[in-house]
Amino acid sequence: METDKLTAEKIVAEALELLQECGIERMSMRQLARRLSIRAPTLYWYFPDKAAILRAVIKTLFERAVSTVPPTSTWQDWMRGFGAAIWQMNKEVPYTPLLLRSPDANNAEVFEFVMKRIDAKMKVFDVDMKRYARAHSDVQAFVLGWSVFAHSDIAPKVESLVDLDTAVLEGVDMIVRYWEDRLSDVPPPQDQGLPATARS
Amino acid sequence: METDKLTAEKIVAEALELLQECGIERMSMRQLARRLSIRAPTLYWYFPDKAAILRAVIKTLFERAVSTVPPTSTWQDWMRGFGAAIWQMNKEVPYTPLLLRSPDANNAEVFEFVMKRIDAKMKVFDVDMKRYARAHSDVQAFVLGWSVFAHSDIAPKVESLVDLDTAVLEGVDMIVRYWEDRLSDVPPPQDQGLPATARS
Repeated sequence: METDKLTAEKIVAEALELLQECGIERMSMRQLARRLSIRAPTLYWYFPDKAAILRAVIKTLFERAVSTVPPTSTWQDWMRGFGAAIWQMNKEVPYTPLLLRSPDANNAEVFEFVMKRIDAKMKVFDVDMKRYARAHSDVQAFVLGWSVFAHSDIAPKVESLVDLDTAVLEGVDMIVRYWEDRLSDVPPPQDQGLPATARS
Repeated sequence: METDKLTAEKIVAEALELLQECGIERMSMRQLARRLSIRAPTLYWYFPDKAAILRAVIKTLFERAVSTVPPTSTWQDWMRGFGAAIWQMNKEVPYTPLLLRSPDANNAEVFEFVMKRIDAKMKVFDVDMKRYARAHSDVQAFVLGWSVFAHSDIAPKVESLVDLDTAVLEGVDMIVRYWEDRLSDVPPPQDQGLPATARS
């Protein structure tokens, strides 16, 4: 490792593997440095603390998921693809809910990153991100919740009743259609955030 | 504490408080025994291990939430009330996603308990639980996912875009309406589980 040039990307890649093996709570900067064959102070030069590494891990996972969404011609299809991509990621990375639940790790910096990334995607379709923020949050929350079941010991029991992939993908489609209907007759907001909506 | 009669309920009540203070990972049987002013072997007489206590905690939280749902005349309203009740519980108990994510804690025994409890509720409305299992799972997953955001450091950012209570309650309503529509024209299953459904 010492012979390769150390980069933030390499550190994050190693952190991803270490997290799979030992979990968030047990991952330490010392351990990570040892696996990279570097001294801990070198690691701190790249990341001030463990939380900073966890933030970089979240951003990397999110970016990877977004990059797998194929090009689409509507925001609806993009959101379906986005839901499928984060479900795939959640299946592969069992600790995502713990990571997102972790204070310090999932903070304002991560939020801004994610919103900017989605905003850039939505701009292609000429839609107002503020109006679509809740649709996106619904998709993310729904997928995240199912991934909690998928990685618990009740997964086989749940799977005896429902096919997980079907449940998640059909659920994402339900959310997309709901917002498609709901947002089709809402005038664009006057830049004061989401329009106040009565319970329909 | 020694003067009161020790019961499984008292142990679980103390475990709930201890979990709020120190989290799942850090809670120990020794610590719990000390807080109950009993010796560890006494505790093991009630619960064989920490996972057994965590399972009892999940069941207690679920039972409490279900007991707060007011009587309703339709399964749709019961499910809305159930969604609101588990959202309230998730707001008060920040570690619920971690608990449900924890292997050993959220296992087949817990699953059977939850399904039986919901089944009993649904019997009142003369609906087939097998057909409604996915609707329930969707509600639980959706609420759980939002609660992950609610207890992370991004909560203030999310709340600047959407009101969390509104997002969750409207989302639960969306799921109830979706399943109301979808199940209204499905014939009852011939006891072979959920009917196979094409993506609509």
